[in-house]
Amino acid sequence: MKCKAAVAWEPKKPLVIEEVEVMGPKEGEVLLKVIASGVCHTDAFTLSGDDPEGSFPCILGHEGGCEVVELGPGVKNLEVGDHVIPLYIAECGDCEYCNSTKSNLCQTIAPTIWTGYMPDGTRRFSQGGKDIFHYMGCSTFSEYTVVPEIALAKINKAAPLDKACLLGCGVTTGIGAVLNTAKVEAGSTVAVFGLGGIGLSCIQGAVMAGAKRIIGIDINPDKFEFAKQLGCTDFVNPKDIPEGGFVEYMQDTFDGGPDYSFECIGNVHVMRDALECTHMGWGKSVVIGVAGAGQVIQTRPFNLVVGRTWMGTAFGGVKGRTELPGYVDRYMAGEIELDSLVTHKMPLEDINRAFDLMHSGESIRSVIEF
Amino acid sequence: MKCKAAVAWEPKKPLVIEEVEVMGPKEGEVLLKVIASGVCHTDAFTLSGDDPEGSFPCILGHEGGCEVVELGPGVKNLEVGDHVIPLYIAECGDCEYCNSTKSNLCQTIAPTIWTGYMPDGTRRFSQGGKDIFHYMGCSTFSEYTVVPEIALAKINKAAPLDKACLLGCGVTTGIGAVLNTAKVEAGSTVAVFGLGGIGLSCIQGAVMAGAKRIIGIDINPDKFEFAKQLGCTDFVNPKDIPEGGFVEYMQDTFDGGPDYSFECIGNVHVMRDALECTHMGWGKSVVIGVAGAGQVIQTRPFNLVVGRTWMGTAFGGVKGRTELPGYVDRYMAGEIELDSLVTHKMPLEDINRAFDLMHSGESIRSVIEF
Repeated sequence: MKCKAAVAWEPKKPLVIEEVEVMGPKEGEVLLKVIASGVCHTDAFTLSGDDPEGSFPCILGHEGGCEVVELGPGVKNLEVGDHVIPLYIAECGDCEYCNSTKSNLCQTIAPTIWTGYMPDGTRRFSQGGKDIFHYMGCSTFSEYTVVPEIALAKINKAAPLDKACLLGCGVTTGIGAVLNTAKVEAGSTVAVFGLGGIGLSCIQGAVMAGAKRIIGIDINPDKFEFAKQLGCTDFVNPKDIPEGGFVEYMQDTFDGGPDYSFECIGNVHVMRDALECTHMGWGKSVVIGVAGAGQVIQTRPFNLVVGRTWMGTAFGGVKGRTELPGYVDRYMAGEIELDSLVTHKMPLEDINRAFDLMHSGESIRSVIEF
Repeated sequence: MKCKAAVAWEPKKPLVIEEVEVMGPKEGEVLLKVIASGVCHTDAFTLSGDDPEGSFPCILGHEGGCEVVELGPGVKNLEVGDHVIPLYIAECGDCEYCNSTKSNLCQTIAPTIWTGYMPDGTRRFSQGGKDIFHYMGCSTFSEYTVVPEIALAKINKAAPLDKACLLGCGVTTGIGAVLNTAKVEAGSTVAVFGLGGIGLSCIQGAVMAGAKRIIGIDINPDKFEFAKQLGCTDFVNPKDIPEGGFVEYMQDTFDGGPDYSFECIGNVHVMRDALECTHMGWGKSVVIGVAGAGQVIQTRPFNLVVGRTWMGTAFGGVKGRTELPGYVDRYMAGEIELDSLVTHKMPLEDINRAFDLMHSGESIRSVIEF
């Protein structure tokens, strides 16, 4: 079939709305109609050319709310008309990661997901005979996309897909990082670095965990007001602190430093500060942001020896098919805030404006409506 | 009083046996007769001049088995004749660290311990009117030493002090790192980097935790035989692996890499390998070794994002006064092996030979008997 899609022909260039060919689903695959898709920093990161795994031309987008329109052979647990969220981390249910309670990193189809192919090593998108790469196994900046069944979370059909799509990446990552990865306890002090979509979701997670103090850190003070509405109690603008004094400031101001910190930016220097400012003896810092190719984090080992822990998380440690539907239900029950995170909506034709709004810091999330 | 002590007059020079003056105990302090003292790599590290906190002249030694000979005013819970192990991490029982289940890093007297003074900011050792620094609050390379009560673990009097002294640092650190810090589970695969006193104790801890595979890693294959006796199941000599291929080798050979790793050397490059070779999704690496001043550890943040955790430990996370007596009891019950770790014994006069044996790799632990 033919449909409209936003194609990233090469790094650093605006997306181009094109008519592309979409092949039907093969064994174990599902054809989806994309109803809505969030635009995430990770899309922008890959488009910037800094992502070593980015392959071009590709169709970006990985925060989708979709409807099942056609089942490939062998699809067992989905029906036409089901609402689903595509997963960039699949859940086959049968590998050593799926069988472990410690990890959500199902590896069954990861090698093809991260190189832009379907599990059988081919692609479903093309134009004029030239194949186009998939992206993160999702490619939701297209009217139609094809995703393997093991990478689809079936969700409550009553949930509005133009909001629930945010649970496909940013919001789940932030909340999961707090609840699953760091396991923040009630009464804790939590610091969140970077108040974009993921950082704001960390704040939501910290509120859900019963954190006592939630410190929002950003160099753009315009972000503080909305963070406060979500439950942030304190704000720090690193630009207000003399250079080199950040860690000391955090420890002096917050009783020895936060018990937990979350880096939601992707800046390796901030990752170091986020670790080192935590409380001696038990501080835990979680890396969420994605850094550029080849960049390294560093610290003196003494900072670990005195009881700090450095961790990371992907998709908040959430197993997509078994746990994500519960996140959607918690949104429907009013426990997770999504509506106010969607600051802008636009049709696919205006998708480049979504990237502009993100870069200028004006939007929290833009959602593409098809 | 006067007594014999091994004085480190300056970095990089042999210790000198001297007659020194020891002042009696002040408020809250205890005068101890040192019966035996292990010689640990940390003593050698400070003597090397690489320890930024080393102050000279000082009396080294921090793995002591001692008898109480005089109580200062206000000492409440010890009596003359009690057997004690001096603690370089005190346990006041009342600070935020002592009140936390997550940390053993009591800070009450840490500032003076780590700068070579007693809690009141003065020193008890001198020679000819010139003060000599304490070391790690212990200074056990002396016939007599003075230690605050809150830095003394009272132990089972039946325990032989020439063995139990090893629980004052290395053995407890290694076992505690496995049981308290990493919380290794039964059935795990554990890698131990560096088969000195601490590494061998990590192996003991891994056996106690029920680890299935215990991989000993050292560039000196002479270390493997004894490690095997303690329960090590596999051995890797990094010199046998092509340069740059270590991480891949470990992951290929051990089903995706060890679940847990312990760095017991103090080499920041090994610390990186120890982290990166662990299993994706849940690998935990614990830094135990002490690195030189100003050195940093580094890795790509991606290595954390895919589920690895980087931690550290000091004294194995063991709270000295409340938990260390239990370690001594477990030694007495045959659950912890100490006797065979003491490969050499010598009088204080021969202490420089203990350092030579350590540097040549001939000894596991030398114990000074007074």
